[in-house]
Amino acid sequence: MAVFAHRNPVMFQHCDPAGIVFYPRYFEMINAVVETFFDQAVAWSFHQMHIVERLGVPMGRIAVDFHAPSRLGDVLDWTLAVDRTGGASADMVIRAAGGGEARLTVRGTLVLVDLDKMKSRRWPDRVRAVLESYAEDAA
Amino acid sequence: MAVFAHRNPVMFQHCDPAGIVFYPRYFEMINAVVETFFDQAVAWSFHQMHIVERLGVPMGRIAVDFHAPSRLGDVLDWTLAVDRTGGASADMVIRAAGGGEARLTVRGTLVLVDLDKMKSRRWPDRVRAVLESYAEDAA
Amino acid sequence: MAVFAHRNPVMFQHCDPAGIVFYPRYFEMINAVVETFFDQAVAWSFHQMHIVERLGVPMGRIAVDFHAPSRLGDVLDWTLAVDRTGGASADMVIRAAGGGEARLTVRGTLVLVDLDKMKSRRWPDRVRAVLESYAEDAA
Amino acid sequence: MAVFAHRNPVMFQHCDPAGIVFYPRYFEMINAVVETFFDQAVAWSFHQMHIVERLGVPMGRIAVDFHAPSRLGDVLDWTLAVDRTGGASADMVIRAAGGGEARLTVRGTLVLVDLDKMKSRRWPDRVRAVLESYAEDAA
Repeated sequence: MAVFAHRNPVMFQHCDPAGIVFYPRYFEMINAVVETFFDQAVAWSFHQMHIVERLGVPMGRIAVDFHAPSRLGDVLDWTLAVDRTGGASADMVIRAAGGGEARLTVRGTLVLVDLDKMKSRRWPDRVRAVLESYAEDAA
Repeated sequence: MAVFAHRNPVMFQHCDPAGIVFYPRYFEMINAVVETFFDQAVAWSFHQMHIVERLGVPMGRIAVDFHAPSRLGDVLDWTLAVDRTGGASADMVIRAAGGGEARLTVRGTLVLVDLDKMKSRRWPDRVRAVLESYAEDAA
Repeated sequence: MAVFAHRNPVMFQHCDPAGIVFYPRYFEMINAVVETFFDQAVAWSFHQMHIVERLGVPMGRIAVDFHAPSRLGDVLDWTLAVDRTGGASADMVIRAAGGGEARLTVRGTLVLVDLDKMKSRRWPDRVRAVLESYAEDAA
Repeated sequence: MAVFAHRNPVMFQHCDPAGIVFYPRYFEMINAVVETFFDQAVAWSFHQMHIVERLGVPMGRIAVDFHAPSRLGDVLDWTLAVDRTGGASADMVIRAAGGGEARLTVRGTLVLVDLDKMKSRRWPDRVRAVLESYAEDAA
């Protein structure tokens, strides 16, 4: 039961006039967590996936609960686990914490798509095996 | 039963290497719809709210279903309705369509907060009345 | 001697923790001014240019003087003029003012490029004629 | 003669429909290089500077030459040197390369400002000493 971990600092570019992270910037961070997961855990870089193979993993649905604001200089600790691996989709649970305090919880459904036909595609077996190895314990 | 309408073109800055809107950019657009709603419908500009009154309306929760991709040059037609107005919160339903085709549906809960204390605050009566006038028909 | 005019409000998404426009956001606005100029003045949309014809107009060089900060709620009035039209390039002068006060002056050199070969391309005659009609008076 | 070095990957969020870095995203990276320089080399975090001391270092002028495009998956190697340290300003030369190929050269002038009065402020002696130690060899 592996969990993927990632860390990024809250930088000036993420913050709004209230001095806290502007929530659209969280979605750039969420995308970066997913992109880094595919690069490091699945060994499938977005360059290889998008440019060479003309595939993508857009979100079909995403729901985010914001528990507490994050501020300039905070360090965010992210985890990513895969709740369910479907034929062409994957439900992910992504969480961010700062100094041990929960900041946001993301539930998102990725779909593997052929970018030229904009149709879904089954996960390659190798990729499915990695996704399943990141299943979150149902406890 | 009023519905707030807003329109924006999909520009180059919104699009990813697949030539479609990169989903974090949708959240900037969603924020712009909410900001324009407060400015035009509620007559409460984000400058007045954030800088003068030190209040904000961060999202406590947001869930988005992406129905179809949007492409460079599409024109997005947005609507915003208020599903439920709570003491210090409001549930909004925001939809975007392009050329009559549904692109995304957003359900978000805004909370009015005091930016200095980071505590929730009851809607002023005047604002509550406007929010209630944008209730979506429950049909 | 035509000058292209464009207007946009400073929105929440543009502002930093100091409550002023974060300068990378100005470059998104500058790109939007150029994109709108090509769409409206040249009648060459970025969709047509980039997706259909596989051409682009990246900046080869850009220099910006920031005269005064812009704040949330300001309305920016932009102008664009073409200083010099070269074989495959164009020198543009783009200015933004808010409430009559100069905010920034941009001098940028665009180059028309073939996106597949990443090589420069001569302006089509029709486009060159429009660019030349937006020459700024040398006075 | 110290030079500050920084590295970042080109990620999906930086790239445009042509598959190359959209130039406004470079300015976010440039700001991140400057922010990291102040944090690590000057030991003056943007949180401390902006939020606690209410000071900022906006660009007064910035000029960028783009030598070659950067693509999704490239790793950018940045360097920052201080050309000249004035009373309240600093001229910086920031360069990015990818795989040893020059991508862009930035010449920018930062000004230390009091964010409440929006007036320039002399560098603290400690900060000036660090800035001067990053002077680029005039060779």
